[in-house]
Amino acid sequence: MLDKTKSLIIVISAPSGAGKTTLTKRLLQISSFAYSVSFTTRPPRKNEIEGVDYYFISNEEFQKMVEEGKFVEWARVHGQLYGTSIDLLDNAIETKKDVVLEVDVKGGIEIKKKYPKAVLIFFLPPSWQELEKRLNKRNTETKERIRERIKQAKKEIAYAPSYDYLVVNDDINKALSDILSIVKAERCRLDRLSLKNLSKNKR
Amino acid sequence: MLDKTKSLIIVISAPSGAGKTTLTKRLLQISSFAYSVSFTTRPPRKNEIEGVDYYFISNEEFQKMVEEGKFVEWARVHGQLYGTSIDLLDNAIETKKDVVLEVDVKGGIEIKKKYPKAVLIFFLPPSWQELEKRLNKRNTETKERIRERIKQAKKEIAYAPSYDYLVVNDDINKALSDILSIVKAERCRLDRLSLKNLSKNKR
Repeated sequence: MLDKTKSLIIVISAPSGAGKTTLTKRLLQISSFAYSVSFTTRPPRKNEIEGVDYYFISNEEFQKMVEEGKFVEWARVHGQLYGTSIDLLDNAIETKKDVVLEVDVKGGIEIKKKYPKAVLIFFLPPSWQELEKRLNKRNTETKERIRERIKQAKKEIAYAPSYDYLVVNDDINKALSDILSIVKAERCRLDRLSLKNLSKNKR
Repeated sequence: MLDKTKSLIIVISAPSGAGKTTLTKRLLQISSFAYSVSFTTRPPRKNEIEGVDYYFISNEEFQKMVEEGKFVEWARVHGQLYGTSIDLLDNAIETKKDVVLEVDVKGGIEIKKKYPKAVLIFFLPPSWQELEKRLNKRNTETKERIRERIKQAKKEIAYAPSYDYLVVNDDINKALSDILSIVKAERCRLDRLSLKNLSKNKR
Protein backbone atom coordinates (compact mmCIF):
# COMPACT_ATOMS: atom_id res chain seq x y z
CA MET A 1 0.00 0.00 0.00
CA LEU A 2 2.80 2.38 0.86
CA ASP A 3 5.88 3.24 -1.10
CA LYS A 4 8.65 2.63 1.41
CA THR A 5 11.23 1.99 -1.25
CA LYS A 6 12.76 5.45 -1.31
CA SER A 7 16.26 5.88 0.04
CA LEU A 8 16.73 7.17 3.52
CA ILE A 9 19.71 9.49 3.99
CA ILE A 10 20.93 9.61 7.57
CA VAL A 11 23.49 12.26 8.41
CA ILE A 12 25.37 11.84 11.68
CA SER A 13 27.35 14.77 13.02
CA ALA A 14 29.22 14.94 16.29
CA PRO A 15 32.16 16.57 17.98
CA SER A 16 35.28 14.38 17.71
CA GLY A 17 35.35 12.03 20.66
CA ALA A 18 31.57 11.68 20.92
CA GLY A 19 31.89 8.13 19.66
CA LYS A 20 30.53 8.76 16.16
CA THR A 21 32.81 6.34 14.30
CA THR A 22 32.08 3.44 16.69
CA LEU A 23 28.38 4.19 16.48
CA THR A 24 28.37 4.30 12.68
CA LYS A 25 30.34 1.04 12.46
CA ARG A 26 27.88 -0.70 14.77
CA LEU A 27 24.97 0.75 12.81
CA LEU A 28 26.39 -0.61 9.56
CA GLN A 29 26.94 -4.03 11.11
CA ILE A 30 23.32 -4.46 12.18
CA SER A 31 21.45 -2.66 9.40
CA SER A 32 21.38 -2.60 5.63
CA PHE A 33 22.67 0.96 5.40
CA ALA A 34 25.45 1.75 2.97
CA TYR A 35 28.17 4.06 4.20
CA SER A 36 28.86 7.10 2.07
CA VAL A 37 32.64 7.29 2.03
CA SER A 38 33.99 10.85 2.20
CA PHE A 39 37.01 12.27 0.46
CA THR A 40 39.75 13.79 2.61
CA THR A 41 43.21 15.30 2.47
CA ARG A 42 43.92 14.06 6.00
CA PRO A 43 46.57 11.33 6.12
CA PRO A 44 45.16 7.90 7.02
CA ARG A 45 45.26 6.88 10.69
CA LYS A 46 46.50 3.45 11.65
CA ASN A 47 43.98 0.79 10.47
CA GLU A 48 42.11 3.17 8.16
CA ILE A 49 41.47 1.71 4.72
CA GLU A 50 41.31 3.59 1.41
CA GLY A 51 37.77 3.50 -0.02
CA VAL A 52 36.34 2.10 3.22
CA ASP A 53 37.03 4.78 5.81
CA TYR A 54 37.84 7.57 3.36
CA TYR A 55 39.13 8.23 -0.09
CA PHE A 56 42.49 9.75 0.76
CA ILE A 57 43.43 12.34 -1.86
CA SER A 58 45.92 15.20 -2.25
CA ASN A 59 45.15 18.87 -1.76
CA GLU A 60 45.37 19.36 -5.53
CA GLU A 61 42.93 16.54 -6.28
CA PHE A 62 40.54 17.92 -3.66
CA GLN A 63 40.69 21.45 -5.10
CA LYS A 64 39.99 20.05 -8.57
CA MET A 65 36.86 18.24 -7.28
CA VAL A 66 35.70 21.44 -5.59
CA GLU A 67 36.13 23.39 -8.84
CA GLU A 68 34.24 20.72 -10.79
CA GLY A 69 31.32 20.90 -8.32
CA LYS A 70 31.76 17.27 -7.29
CA PHE A 71 30.89 17.85 -3.62
CA VAL A 72 27.46 18.31 -2.06
CA GLU A 73 29.38 19.76 0.89
CA TRP A 74 33.00 20.14 1.81
CA ALA A 75 34.79 21.72 4.73
CA ARG A 76 38.11 22.35 6.34
CA VAL A 77 38.13 20.69 9.76
CA HIS A 78 41.16 20.88 12.04
CA GLY A 79 43.22 22.05 9.04
CA GLN A 80 42.20 19.18 6.72
CA LEU A 81 39.69 19.06 3.88
CA TYR A 82 36.70 16.70 3.88
CA GLY A 83 34.05 16.37 1.18
CA THR A 84 30.93 14.37 0.31
CA SER A 85 30.69 13.30 -3.31
CA ILE A 86 27.42 14.08 -5.09
CA ASP A 87 27.97 11.16 -7.48
CA LEU A 88 28.36 8.60 -4.70
CA LEU A 89 25.27 9.91 -2.91
CA ASP A 90 23.11 10.07 -6.04
CA ASN A 91 24.27 6.62 -7.03
CA ALA A 92 23.12 5.23 -3.67
CA ILE A 93 19.75 6.96 -4.07
CA GLU A 94 19.33 5.62 -7.63
CA THR A 95 20.03 2.10 -6.49
CA LYS A 96 17.51 2.69 -3.65
CA LYS A 97 20.10 2.09 -0.97
CA ASP A 98 19.80 3.70 2.43
CA VAL A 99 22.86 5.75 3.20
CA VAL A 100 24.55 6.89 6.35
CA LEU A 101 26.98 9.81 6.23
CA GLU A 102 29.33 11.27 8.79
CA VAL A 103 29.84 14.97 8.20
CA ASP A 104 30.43 18.08 10.28
CA VAL A 105 27.45 20.22 11.29
CA LYS A 106 27.76 22.78 8.51
CA GLY A 107 27.98 19.92 6.02
CA GLY A 108 24.83 18.39 7.43
CA ILE A 109 22.97 21.64 6.89
CA GLU A 110 24.28 21.83 3.29
CA ILE A 111 23.12 18.26 2.62
CA LYS A 112 19.65 19.04 4.00
CA LYS A 113 19.39 21.99 1.60
CA LYS A 114 20.00 19.72 -1.38
CA TYR A 115 18.28 16.60 -0.02
CA PRO A 116 15.45 18.00 2.14
CA LYS A 117 14.37 14.55 3.30
CA ALA A 118 17.79 13.76 4.74
CA VAL A 119 17.56 13.02 8.45
CA LEU A 120 20.09 14.97 10.51
CA ILE A 121 21.18 13.42 13.79
CA PHE A 122 23.42 15.30 16.18
CA PHE A 123 25.36 12.97 18.39
CA LEU A 124 26.67 14.24 21.70
CA PRO A 125 28.97 13.01 24.42
CA PRO A 126 27.32 12.88 27.85
CA SER A 127 29.53 15.73 29.17
CA TRP A 128 32.58 17.84 28.36
CA GLN A 129 34.56 15.99 31.02
CA GLU A 130 33.76 12.68 29.34
CA LEU A 131 34.66 14.10 25.93
CA GLU A 132 38.06 15.22 27.20
CA LYS A 133 38.64 11.83 28.80
CA ARG A 134 37.84 10.03 25.55
CA LEU A 135 40.10 12.28 23.50
CA ASN A 136 42.97 11.72 25.95
CA LYS A 137 42.39 7.98 25.82
CA ARG A 138 42.67 8.01 22.05
CA ASN A 139 46.34 8.85 22.57
CA THR A 140 46.82 10.08 19.01
CA GLU A 141 46.88 13.79 19.67
CA THR A 142 48.74 16.44 21.57
CA LYS A 143 47.23 18.22 24.59
CA GLU A 144 46.99 21.35 22.48
CA ARG A 145 45.14 19.55 19.68
CA ILE A 146 42.70 18.15 22.26
CA ARG A 147 41.99 21.62 23.66
CA GLU A 148 41.42 22.80 20.09
CA ARG A 149 38.99 19.93 19.43
CA ILE A 150 36.98 20.76 22.54
CA LYS A 151 36.83 24.42 21.56
CA GLN A 152 35.64 23.33 18.11
CA ALA A 153 33.04 20.97 19.64
CA LYS A 154 31.55 23.84 21.65
CA LYS A 155 31.20 25.84 18.43
CA GLU A 156 29.57 22.91 16.62
CA ILE A 157 26.94 22.46 19.29
CA ALA A 158 25.60 25.90 18.44
CA TYR A 159 24.32 24.33 15.19
CA ALA A 160 22.42 21.55 16.96
CA PRO A 161 19.04 23.36 16.70
CA SER A 162 19.19 22.99 12.89
CA TYR A 163 19.28 19.24 13.30
CA ASP A 164 16.28 16.90 13.40
CA TYR A 165 17.38 14.69 16.27
CA LEU A 166 19.77 14.73 19.15
CA VAL A 167 21.17 11.50 20.57
CA VAL A 168 23.35 11.47 23.69
CA ASN A 169 26.05 8.84 23.89
CA ASP A 170 25.88 7.84 27.57
CA ASP A 171 25.87 4.24 26.51
CA ILE A 172 26.66 3.03 22.99
CA ASN A 173 23.89 0.40 22.96
CA LYS A 174 21.28 2.88 24.10
CA ALA A 175 22.50 5.40 21.52
CA LEU A 176 22.37 2.73 18.81
CA SER A 177 18.85 1.79 19.85
CA ASP A 178 17.83 5.48 19.65
CA ILE A 179 19.23 5.71 16.12
CA LEU A 180 17.48 2.53 14.99
CA SER A 181 14.23 3.88 16.44
CA ILE A 182 14.71 7.14 14.55
CA VAL A 183 15.21 5.17 11.32
CA LYS A 184 12.10 3.08 11.97
CA ALA A 185 10.01 6.12 12.91
CA GLU A 186 11.19 8.06 9.85
CA ARG A 187 9.97 5.21 7.65
CA CYS A 188 6.49 5.71 9.16
CA ARG A 189 6.45 9.49 8.70
CA LEU A 190 3.59 10.63 6.48
CA ASP A 191 5.73 13.30 4.83
CA ARG A 192 8.05 10.54 3.65
CA LEU A 193 5.45 8.07 2.43
CA SER A 194 3.99 8.10 -1.01
CA LEU A 195 0.26 8.35 -0.44
CA LYS A 196 -0.91 8.13 -3.99
CA ASN A 197 -2.50 4.74 -3.46
CA LEU A 198 -3.58 5.34 0.09
CA SER A 199 -7.21 6.00 -0.59
CA LYS A 200 -7.37 2.72 -2.47
CA ASN A 201 -5.48 1.08 0.38
CA LYS A 202 -3.48 -1.09 -1.99
CA ARG A 203 -0.36 -2.94 -0.95
CA MET B 1 21.75 18.11 29.80
CA LEU B 2 18.42 17.87 28.04
CA ASP B 3 14.98 18.48 29.36
CA LYS B 4 13.18 15.27 28.47
CA THR B 5 10.65 15.66 31.22
CA LYS B 6 7.88 17.21 29.16
CA SER B 7 4.78 15.16 28.51
CA LEU B 8 4.42 13.36 25.23
CA ILE B 9 0.88 13.27 23.85
CA ILE B 10 0.33 10.39 21.44
CA VAL B 11 -2.91 10.41 19.48
CA ILE B 12 -3.86 7.16 17.78
CA SER B 13 -6.61 7.23 15.16
CA ALA B 14 -7.81 4.35 13.08
CA PRO B 15 -10.84 2.99 11.29
CA SER B 16 -12.80 0.63 13.55
CA GLY B 17 -11.43 -2.85 13.09
CA ALA B 18 -7.85 -1.74 12.45
CA GLY B 19 -6.90 -3.16 15.84
CA LYS B 20 -6.52 0.17 17.64
CA THR B 21 -7.89 -0.94 20.99
CA THR B 22 -5.69 -4.04 21.17
CA LEU B 23 -2.69 -1.96 20.16
CA THR B 24 -3.37 0.71 22.77
CA LYS B 25 -3.85 -1.89 25.50
CA ARG B 26 -0.55 -3.57 24.62
CA LEU B 27 1.15 -0.18 24.52
CA LEU B 28 -0.14 0.66 27.99
CA GLN B 29 1.03 -2.70 29.32
CA ILE B 30 4.63 -2.25 28.23
CA SER B 31 5.10 1.49 28.65
CA SER B 32 4.53 4.15 31.26
CA PHE B 33 1.89 5.94 29.20
CA ALA B 34 -1.32 6.98 30.87
CA TYR B 35 -4.51 6.47 28.89
CA SER B 36 -6.71 9.49 28.44
CA VAL B 37 -10.19 8.13 29.00
CA SER B 38 -12.81 9.64 26.68
CA PHE B 39 -16.40 10.51 27.47
CA THR B 40 -19.11 8.86 25.41
CA THR B 41 -22.86 8.50 25.09
CA ARG B 42 -22.41 5.04 23.57
CA PRO B 43 -23.67 2.23 25.82
CA PRO B 44 -20.89 0.10 27.31
CA ARG B 45 -19.97 -3.10 25.42
CA LYS B 46 -19.56 -6.33 27.34
CA ASN B 47 -16.40 -6.12 29.54
CA GLU B 48 -16.04 -2.36 29.20
CA ILE B 49 -15.44 -0.62 32.52
CA GLU B 50 -16.60 2.87 33.53
CA GLY B 51 -13.61 5.20 33.96
CA VAL B 52 -11.23 2.69 32.39
CA ASP B 53 -12.51 2.25 28.85
CA TYR B 54 -14.76 5.32 28.79
CA TYR B 55 -16.76 7.60 31.02
CA PHE B 56 -20.26 6.61 29.97
CA ILE B 57 -22.57 9.60 30.20
CA SER B 58 -26.01 10.61 28.97
CA ASN B 59 -26.72 12.81 25.98
CA GLU B 60 -27.75 15.61 28.34
CA GLU B 61 -24.53 15.37 30.37
CA PHE B 62 -22.53 15.36 27.15
CA GLN B 63 -24.32 18.43 25.79
CA LYS B 64 -23.68 20.25 29.06
CA MET B 65 -19.94 19.50 28.84
CA VAL B 66 -19.90 20.74 25.22
CA GLU B 67 -21.60 23.99 26.26
CA GLU B 68 -19.16 24.47 29.13
CA GLY B 69 -16.20 24.04 26.75
CA LYS B 70 -14.95 20.97 28.57
CA PHE B 71 -13.79 19.12 25.45
CA VAL B 72 -10.65 19.70 23.43
CA GLU B 73 -12.48 17.77 20.70
CA TRP B 74 -15.74 15.92 20.43
CA ALA B 75 -17.50 14.17 17.59
CA ARG B 76 -20.47 12.14 16.59
CA VAL B 77 -19.24 8.76 15.34
CA HIS B 78 -21.67 6.10 14.15
CA GLY B 79 -24.47 8.05 15.82
CA GLN B 80 -22.81 8.31 19.24
CA LEU B 81 -20.96 11.20 20.88
CA TYR B 82 -17.33 10.95 21.96
CA GLY B 83 -15.25 13.66 23.63
CA THR B 84 -11.79 14.30 25.06
CA SER B 85 -11.73 16.23 28.31
CA ILE B 86 -9.40 19.23 28.45
CA ASP B 87 -9.12 18.89 32.23
CA LEU B 88 -7.98 15.27 32.10
CA LEU B 89 -5.42 16.06 29.39
CA ASP B 90 -4.07 19.17 31.12
CA ASN B 91 -3.87 17.30 34.38
CA ALA B 92 -1.73 14.60 32.75
CA ILE B 93 0.54 17.26 31.27
CA GLU B 94 0.86 19.07 34.61
CA THR B 95 1.84 15.87 36.37
CA LYS B 96 4.33 15.26 33.51
CA LYS B 97 2.69 12.03 32.48
CA ASP B 98 2.87 10.79 28.93
CA VAL B 99 -0.58 10.30 27.52
CA VAL B 100 -2.03 8.13 24.80
CA LEU B 101 -5.41 9.03 23.30
CA GLU B 102 -7.68 7.22 20.92
CA VAL B 103 -9.73 9.66 18.88
CA ASP B 104 -11.16 9.89 15.39
CA VAL B 105 -9.17 11.67 12.68
CA LYS B 106 -10.95 15.02 12.93
CA GLY B 107 -10.41 14.92 16.70
CA GLY B 108 -6.72 14.27 16.20
CA ILE B 109 -6.45 17.35 14.02
CA GLU B 110 -8.30 19.42 16.67
CA ILE B 111 -5.93 18.18 19.37
CA LYS B 112 -2.90 19.08 17.25
CA LYS B 113 -4.25 22.63 16.89
CA LYS B 114 -4.39 23.07 20.65
CA TYR B 115 -1.37 20.91 21.53
CA PRO B 116 0.98 21.40 18.56
CA LYS B 117 3.55 18.95 19.92
CA ALA B 118 1.02 16.12 20.05
CA VAL B 119 2.15 13.20 17.90
CA LEU B 120 -0.57 11.97 15.53
CA ILE B 121 -0.38 8.35 14.47
CA PHE B 122 -2.76 6.94 11.89
CA PHE B 123 -3.18 3.24 12.25
CA LEU B 124 -4.32 1.20 9.27
CA PRO B 125 -5.46 -2.32 8.62
CA PRO B 126 -3.37 -4.11 5.99
CA SER B 127 -6.26 -4.15 3.50
CA TRP B 128 -10.01 -3.53 3.17
CA GLN B 129 -10.61 -7.27 2.92
CA GLU B 130 -8.82 -7.81 6.22
CA LEU B 131 -10.78 -4.95 7.83
CA GLU B 132 -14.09 -6.51 6.77
CA LYS B 133 -12.97 -9.89 8.06
CA ARG B 134 -12.06 -8.43 11.44
CA LEU B 135 -15.34 -6.55 11.75
CA ASN B 136 -17.31 -9.71 10.93
CA LYS B 137 -15.30 -11.67 13.48
CA ARG B 138 -16.19 -9.17 16.18
CA ASN B 139 -19.73 -10.46 15.90
CA THR B 140 -21.27 -7.48 17.68
CA GLU B 141 -22.70 -5.69 14.69
CA THR B 142 -25.14 -6.14 11.86
CA LYS B 143 -24.02 -6.53 8.23
CA GLU B 144 -25.39 -3.10 7.53
CA ARG B 145 -23.46 -1.52 10.41
CA ILE B 146 -20.28 -3.18 9.11
CA ARG B 147 -20.82 -1.76 5.62
CA GLU B 148 -21.34 1.64 7.22
CA ARG B 149 -18.11 1.33 9.21
CA ILE B 150 -16.13 0.47 6.08
CA LYS B 151 -17.60 3.44 4.24
CA GLN B 152 -16.66 5.62 7.22
CA ALA B 153 -13.12 4.16 7.27
CA LYS B 154 -12.62 5.12 3.62
CA LYS B 155 -13.62 8.68 4.45
CA GLU B 156 -11.30 8.81 7.45
CA ILE B 157 -8.30 7.74 5.40
CA ALA B 158 -8.61 10.96 3.41
CA TYR B 159 -7.36 12.74 6.56
CA ALA B 160 -4.23 10.60 6.86
CA PRO B 161 -1.96 13.22 5.22
CA SER B 162 -2.59 15.55 8.19
CA TYR B 163 -1.08 12.97 10.49
CA ASP B 164 2.58 12.68 11.49
CA TYR B 165 2.96 8.93 11.18
CA LEU B 166 1.27 6.01 9.54
CA VAL B 167 1.54 2.53 11.00
CA VAL B 168 0.12 -0.50 9.20
CA ASN B 169 -1.20 -3.31 11.33
CA ASP B 170 -0.03 -6.36 9.37
CA ASP B 171 1.24 -7.82 12.60
CA ILE B 172 0.42 -6.44 16.04
CA ASN B 173 3.96 -6.92 17.38
CA LYS B 174 5.51 -5.17 14.42
CA ALA B 175 2.97 -2.34 14.74
CA LEU B 176 3.71 -2.05 18.46
CA SER B 177 7.43 -1.93 17.76
CA ASP B 178 6.82 0.84 15.19
CA ILE B 179 4.88 2.85 17.76
CA LEU B 180 7.55 2.39 20.44
CA SER B 181 10.17 3.51 17.92
CA ILE B 182 8.11 6.59 17.11
CA VAL B 183 7.90 7.41 20.83
CA LYS B 184 11.64 6.94 21.27
CA ALA B 185 12.45 8.98 18.17
CA GLU B 186 10.10 11.79 19.19
CA ARG B 187 11.96 12.05 22.49
CA CYS B 188 15.15 12.71 20.50
CA ARG B 189 13.60 15.36 18.23
CA LEU B 190 15.34 18.70 18.52
CA ASP B 191 12.08 20.61 18.22
CA ARG B 192 10.87 18.82 21.35
CA LEU B 193 13.97 19.18 23.49
CA SER B 194 14.68 22.14 25.66
CA LEU B 195 18.02 23.39 24.47
CA LYS B 196 18.55 26.12 27.01
CA ASN B 197 21.44 24.32 28.66
CA LEU B 198 22.77 22.72 25.53
CA SER B 199 25.68 25.08 24.97
CA LYS B 200 26.77 24.41 28.53
CA ASN B 201 26.26 20.69 27.90
CA LYS B 202 24.93 20.15 31.40
CA ARG B 203 23.09 17.05 32.49
